[in-house]
Amino acid sequence: MRITSSLELIETTPFTKDKWTRPDSLGWGQSNIIQRGKYIEKGGVNVTELEIPLAEHSFYAVGVSLVIHPWNPHVPTIHLNYRYIEILLSNEVVDWWVAGGSDLTPYYINRDDTVLFHSALKESCDAFDIEFYPRYKRECDNYFWIKHRNFARGLGGIFFDDLTSLDSGKALEFIDSCGRAFIRSYPEILNRRKDQEFSKEQRKWQKIKRGHYVEFNLCYDRGTSVGLMTPDANIEAIFMSIPLNASWEYKHCPQPGSPEEELLEILKNPIDWVN
Amino acid sequence: MRITSSLELIETTPFTKDKWTRPDSLGWGQSNIIQRGKYIEKGGVNVTELEIPLAEHSFYAVGVSLVIHPWNPHVPTIHLNYRYIEILLSNEVVDWWVAGGSDLTPYYINRDDTVLFHSALKESCDAFDIEFYPRYKRECDNYFWIKHRNFARGLGGIFFDDLTSLDSGKALEFIDSCGRAFIRSYPEILNRRKDQEFSKEQRKWQKIKRGHYVEFNLCYDRGTSVGLMTPDANIEAIFMSIPLNASWEYKHCPQPGSPEEELLEILKNPIDWVN
Repeated sequence: MRITSSLELIETTPFTKDKWTRPDSLGWGQSNIIQRGKYIEKGGVNVTELEIPLAEHSFYAVGVSLVIHPWNPHVPTIHLNYRYIEILLSNEVVDWWVAGGSDLTPYYINRDDTVLFHSALKESCDAFDIEFYPRYKRECDNYFWIKHRNFARGLGGIFFDDLTSLDSGKALEFIDSCGRAFIRSYPEILNRRKDQEFSKEQRKWQKIKRGHYVEFNLCYDRGTSVGLMTPDANIEAIFMSIPLNASWEYKHCPQPGSPEEELLEILKNPIDWVN
Repeated sequence: MRITSSLELIETTPFTKDKWTRPDSLGWGQSNIIQRGKYIEKGGVNVTELEIPLAEHSFYAVGVSLVIHPWNPHVPTIHLNYRYIEILLSNEVVDWWVAGGSDLTPYYINRDDTVLFHSALKESCDAFDIEFYPRYKRECDNYFWIKHRNFARGLGGIFFDDLTSLDSGKALEFIDSCGRAFIRSYPEILNRRKDQEFSKEQRKWQKIKRGHYVEFNLCYDRGTSVGLMTPDANIEAIFMSIPLNASWEYKHCPQPGSPEEELLEILKNPIDWVN
């Protein structure tokens, strides 16, 4: 997988390949996992393929998902997830769609990194439809919203739920192009920040923000809740997205004027990073 | 509060009193909080009172809730939550019920401690109705079930959703008696185990199990999800139950024959501890 290789080049620790098959053999997957690597605290790249016969129809899905939680609080967490879905009737495709997205969750805001991430996504979107980036950027800000805290999980990206405006060949090219946006941006961000010094206090803040990440994934993320409700689901592949360490401090409140407070302010009011 | 005092006696670090009022002044609460104490890593005792006018009726609730997450993996986590609820029409009580429960979540099983905890609850129940303990013990095992992992959060206790079989005075005495069951058992367990030696590996296991605790509370606990959906809810009081530190290791699996594996086996098949 090109995505994994683009990370291994910088990380140096190889990812562990973990293939699995559903007990009913209707699906398989490969998880490329890293835990306690040189730069990545926990992360993984999952490829999953699933074909489920329903009453008359059958349901086919293939997807890739990735979450990287680095050790260094100056390197943002990243998530991406793209999937192609088909509904078949006697081996004919009667309906299909693509869905997915990618979003960046920093602990300290670096404007250059954030602009690089959003620009790469915008470039991938613009090649297909000039309206995709602004529309999917807005959907992303809406989706990754932690309602009980009234702020976003991170600095957004793109999110689309049901894309059918392209023909299916073009739609597959589109999600491939979004995957390439990752390769053009995140390894560069990781490389820029991986050796930046950080304090114990900054690591503590990172764990608190990872607590918010856990809250979003367990309380609101549809992929996680559908996954957990699926009989015989591969729990380990679902929990790959959950950080290795998270913490919850009673009434933690960043100092006024601190970079931690600046982050929270921007999470409350999502910004347009590339226009 | 007698419950807080019974803990402060052993913990020695005083709990921090934190009073709050809802912005609409329809409710108030007091959180007695401890974080990074001598023996308790994080914990709190919340008292809440709420009166909400509805269309014609009004809703009144008063309750106490407690969660204690100790540092030492040999001391179990404990939770309790008891509340009295009234529905009023022109200041007349037209309906009322009591609800709540208490459960123990150890990291290493100690049979004496578990029996002490369950016996104290059974004694409090038996004084009111001999059928309460077996019925509410079963409801507790059912309620604190982590569906996606197919095992229980802990070693159970009691849980009741809607108790109206006693008159309201007796019902209040019953929940008071359940609160006293805590005072008779948990401080003694804390005292027995608080200085027992533990290894880094045991602390690591404790954090993994605390990850399961977070999963239950965020995915399944009704109190938490109703709380998070309530407008202007006091998030901090709700998240008091979430441990200070939790971790999620990819594919963590205890060694065969280890105490960690023994715990998981018992969590899969709840035991009758006192009969």
